[in-house]
Amino acid sequence: MNTVEEWVSEPARIAGPGEDISVDELRLAARNHGLPLEALRYDVTPAGLHYLLTHYDIPALDPDTWRVTVSGAVERPLSLRLDDLRARPRVTHRVTLECAGNGRARLSPRPVSQPWLDEAVGTAEWTGAPLAGLLAEAGVATSAVDVAFTGADHGFERGVEQTYRRGLPLIEALRDDVLLVYEMNGQPLPPQHGAPVRLIVPGWYGMAHVKWLVDVAVLESEFDGFQNATAYRLKQAADDPGEPVTRILPKALIQPPGVPDFQSRVRVVDRGVVELTGRAWSGWAPVESVEVSTDDGASWRPAELGPQPAPYAWRSWRYEWTAAQSGRYELRARARDAAGHGQPVNQAWNRQGMANNHAQRVTVVVR
Amino acid sequence: MNTVEEWVSEPARIAGPGEDISVDELRLAARNHGLPLEALRYDVTPAGLHYLLTHYDIPALDPDTWRVTVSGAVERPLSLRLDDLRARPRVTHRVTLECAGNGRARLSPRPVSQPWLDEAVGTAEWTGAPLAGLLAEAGVATSAVDVAFTGADHGFERGVEQTYRRGLPLIEALRDDVLLVYEMNGQPLPPQHGAPVRLIVPGWYGMAHVKWLVDVAVLESEFDGFQNATAYRLKQAADDPGEPVTRILPKALIQPPGVPDFQSRVRVVDRGVVELTGRAWSGWAPVESVEVSTDDGASWRPAELGPQPAPYAWRSWRYEWTAAQSGRYELRARARDAAGHGQPVNQAWNRQGMANNHAQRVTVVVR
Repeated sequence: MNTVEEWVSEPARIAGPGEDISVDELRLAARNHGLPLEALRYDVTPAGLHYLLTHYDIPALDPDTWRVTVSGAVERPLSLRLDDLRARPRVTHRVTLECAGNGRARLSPRPVSQPWLDEAVGTAEWTGAPLAGLLAEAGVATSAVDVAFTGADHGFERGVEQTYRRGLPLIEALRDDVLLVYEMNGQPLPPQHGAPVRLIVPGWYGMAHVKWLVDVAVLESEFDGFQNATAYRLKQAADDPGEPVTRILPKALIQPPGVPDFQSRVRVVDRGVVELTGRAWSGWAPVESVEVSTDDGASWRPAELGPQPAPYAWRSWRYEWTAAQSGRYELRARARDAAGHGQPVNQAWNRQGMANNHAQRVTVVVR
Repeated sequence: MNTVEEWVSEPARIAGPGEDISVDELRLAARNHGLPLEALRYDVTPAGLHYLLTHYDIPALDPDTWRVTVSGAVERPLSLRLDDLRARPRVTHRVTLECAGNGRARLSPRPVSQPWLDEAVGTAEWTGAPLAGLLAEAGVATSAVDVAFTGADHGFERGVEQTYRRGLPLIEALRDDVLLVYEMNGQPLPPQHGAPVRLIVPGWYGMAHVKWLVDVAVLESEFDGFQNATAYRLKQAADDPGEPVTRILPKALIQPPGVPDFQSRVRVVDRGVVELTGRAWSGWAPVESVEVSTDDGASWRPAELGPQPAPYAWRSWRYEWTAAQSGRYELRARARDAAGHGQPVNQAWNRQGMANNHAQRVTVVVR
């Protein structure tokens, strides 16, 4: 006899050779959404255009009764209301967030999950209270190792019923730029971005920024819950324990030039000088260079970088392309950061489709 | 030799038997987005959760230099700034919008375009100036037949380069509830919903609500542009001229109960009394009844209707389901309006996948 888990939730799967996107994947693509690439034009992404990935359902939390607790290995457990957080020092950081699964649908064979192409990214101004101050107030045990963050969202995933929960090493949780935020772009957090309060861990992939936060637990051993031990791992085989997904690898995206075709999204530009612009970011170190190829990666030229507006916010870049000949072109861009991380032209495969950062390809027809 | 149009833009296509979703369709699904169905809980959809379909790119219009013209067969052509519109009588309507292609990806064989399942819907409070007053001021010629609305969005579609433009019969354009809106849910229109100004035609499918509006042209003959004559038609064969898509057919959606599985979105509920709730709407007449089936359409029971908040806004409904036995259930809901339109259990096919309104199916496991 089947268990409930088997009825509702299948194990992780790799698509077969030549298998197109399934209805299961489409259902996720229709409810989650990416940044329309023309929105790379905005320094700060309008809230409704920021990428969004919800594991289960968006919960309905009442901000008047909502509480976040600081629990576990602390001297003085806390229970805080929204007004308590608002009364604390107010800090705003501009941060670029990217989904760890961005680019998954370009892998071959394709891991079956949320099928992102290139668009699971966005940059917002996040305002809230530093976590470090809360932890100091609660008094973290000297034996503490990890901090686990629990959201209010609940569901099944690969046969495991769970409330969304992620662990973070204590040393990261104590950084002064890690925030419990209640505003996005100067407005109260929208429901889909974690209202009333979410975590922001600048530099890390999206899974770390726990939405609908209800508990912060200080742990004396390494957190081994599903989202750390199973889901967000870089691994090659099902039985490979793999490495944890942490900070965002460098990436550059091109704001597609010219005008699009509705269906294929191929771009049309007029012959002549075409200003290519885009954004580049890294969660490891500031972006140091962006290079552009107009021949599908055969040759590369440096782009001009705009200022780095904040340590973990994307940086603008521009490149003047003289499109002298009519024809079809494959544009690519790649970033490199000050820590020495770059972008591959072709993506190495991993079983869960995590932390992909191969150079984007934009097809353009010059007329 | 290929033309630019052939390079970038293919003719309309029907998917082959058993053909899954292509990367072309996925690209659209990743940039456009639907209402996550749990957001049916909101009377008014938060802006970032409202469905969104952009034919080309979201344009970047400067509200300070933006103008809308009233042109064509009028005595006194107008050119209006945003402040001019704001100075006019200010009207707010709550309106449910649905994409004409909603449900397309459930057709078999599947028309290849934006692959919506059930989620291309949303309800907002739209605030702006009535169009009828502007047309009266301009002085519509007695010979006028249609009004054509032009957006600022430009691209290719099935080989035709175009600026998005839709015609509306004059009698509809003169309705007192048709608005040029500059606010959504009490905030300035976000870029993706047509900033600075879009058209709202309550009761009509989404294609009529032209975004990024720049011109309103009064015509003395029927508008025969691409979006009316080719794209938004109900037809069976490629050479069938078909019928125009106009008002929204009735539809009920179920807010999925219980908790979901991440990948399959199958729901799990506990055995016992389950309150099912949802929304129902029609662009033809008020919703008169909603029925619920918990056995995949074999039998139907009436749901209790909430108030009709506005003529063209969705209406809430509830149904108390006693889930006495564990097992797997297919929930369905169907609405009927006062004009006598209902919803089929199985969808009739049409070549472009337009105006589909078969009863939604939600898979639930009772434990």
